[in-house]
Amino acid sequence: MADLLTKDNPVFSGYVFWSLILMLKMLCLYFLTVRQRFRKKVFISPEDLFFVRGGGGEVRNDDDDVERVRRAHRNDLENIPLFLVAGLFYVLTDPSPDVALNLFRVYAVARILHTLVYAVYPVRQPVRAILFFVGLIVTLVIVLLSLVTFHHV
Amino acid sequence: MADLLTKDNPVFSGYVFWSLILMLKMLCLYFLTVRQRFRKKVFISPEDLFFVRGGGGEVRNDDDDVERVRRAHRNDLENIPLFLVAGLFYVLTDPSPDVALNLFRVYAVARILHTLVYAVYPVRQPVRAILFFVGLIVTLVIVLLSLVTFHHV
Amino acid sequence: MADLLTKDNPVFSGYVFWSLILMLKMLCLYFLTVRQRFRKKVFISPEDLFFVRGGGGEVRNDDDDVERVRRAHRNDLENIPLFLVAGLFYVLTDPSPDVALNLFRVYAVARILHTLVYAVYPVRQPVRAILFFVGLIVTLVIVLLSLVTFHHV
Repeated sequence: MADLLTKDNPVFSGYVFWSLILMLKMLCLYFLTVRQRFRKKVFISPEDLFFVRGGGGEVRNDDDDVERVRRAHRNDLENIPLFLVAGLFYVLTDPSPDVALNLFRVYAVARILHTLVYAVYPVRQPVRAILFFVGLIVTLVIVLLSLVTFHHV
Repeated sequence: MADLLTKDNPVFSGYVFWSLILMLKMLCLYFLTVRQRFRKKVFISPEDLFFVRGGGGEVRNDDDDVERVRRAHRNDLENIPLFLVAGLFYVLTDPSPDVALNLFRVYAVARILHTLVYAVYPVRQPVRAILFFVGLIVTLVIVLLSLVTFHHV
Repeated sequence: MADLLTKDNPVFSGYVFWSLILMLKMLCLYFLTVRQRFRKKVFISPEDLFFVRGGGGEVRNDDDDVERVRRAHRNDLENIPLFLVAGLFYVLTDPSPDVALNLFRVYAVARILHTLVYAVYPVRQPVRAILFFVGLIVTLVIVLLSLVTFHHV
């Protein structure tokens, strides 16, 4: 089972590839937060006012442009780490490559679009809700398929 | 050491099983949040008011019923991902199955009860505090037992 | 590739060691939060006022000493789980031990100092910003180096 964790296993390789893409996406959210904070001059801690040399900066946590990026980020934190761990367990059940790779692709695309419609270019609901539930359902499927193999108390 | 990551290893199998149960528990918190948001008509982003056709919805982050579920969720985020990773390291130290499986069981039961008394049916303290510390101490034990094997700089 | 996950592999062993140190650091943040909450008598949920026998406790989320620790904690949650998973993928690319171990060391030291200057002993910016970006850049390097091996769709 352990030799499943090699790049010659397309399921593992695909899982790692899409996980890395999702990590890059999450790292982008930092730069988006920093950009919004400097654009709006709204910071999270008093010492950060150092960065606004000319003054005029504020410490607030109610600026919608900044908080929108932070909400997208928190949503990622609630979802993507679960996928990363559940995906590894799922790889260890030695699933069909076709099924597994398509689940990973759907999840990654749904989460990337979720971030875009939440933090970059907000569109009307229910777009974000649908993308969120697509990600949630893929995670649920991966968890349940893994439970079939690892049913042990 | 790598052939420890198979379902024939009861420690790994038990670790994966309880991890998957905890993930299912975390996924339930989304449905709980959504249920409270629709019951109280309190949403997180302006575009979400779309869902309240008849009007009367609000964008607030101070509704106690909604925030209570979100606090339980954040507490999970602060705890369970650490357990998931530390548990995997601990499995790779090839521990005694009796000790390891009981640690996993105690952790999972404490975290499930923690969510119940926080987000579903609040009871008086110190119940939640005790459940929180049981989870924290199991994590600490797992981390320290892993450090005994992996002491390397 | 799977026999890379053993304590005889210095890269894996170093990765696990520094990951465990970072987990211990994160666990310390709970005790720091609890200490600040009891010092300031500021709690997160109404039932927690049970702990202030003499009365005088408040439910607030705007106390700067408490929120500062919580911001440091959230920053950890946004960063360290990503490092833990990306680090494992990077170990599986069988990197040069010298490069890998130094990346892990730099990351761990930057994050420990980040917590100190954020939550324990605040110092003026840009100290915290620099430490944050050191951690971010190490994560980015690890993710990109892993992508070189796992480029698969």
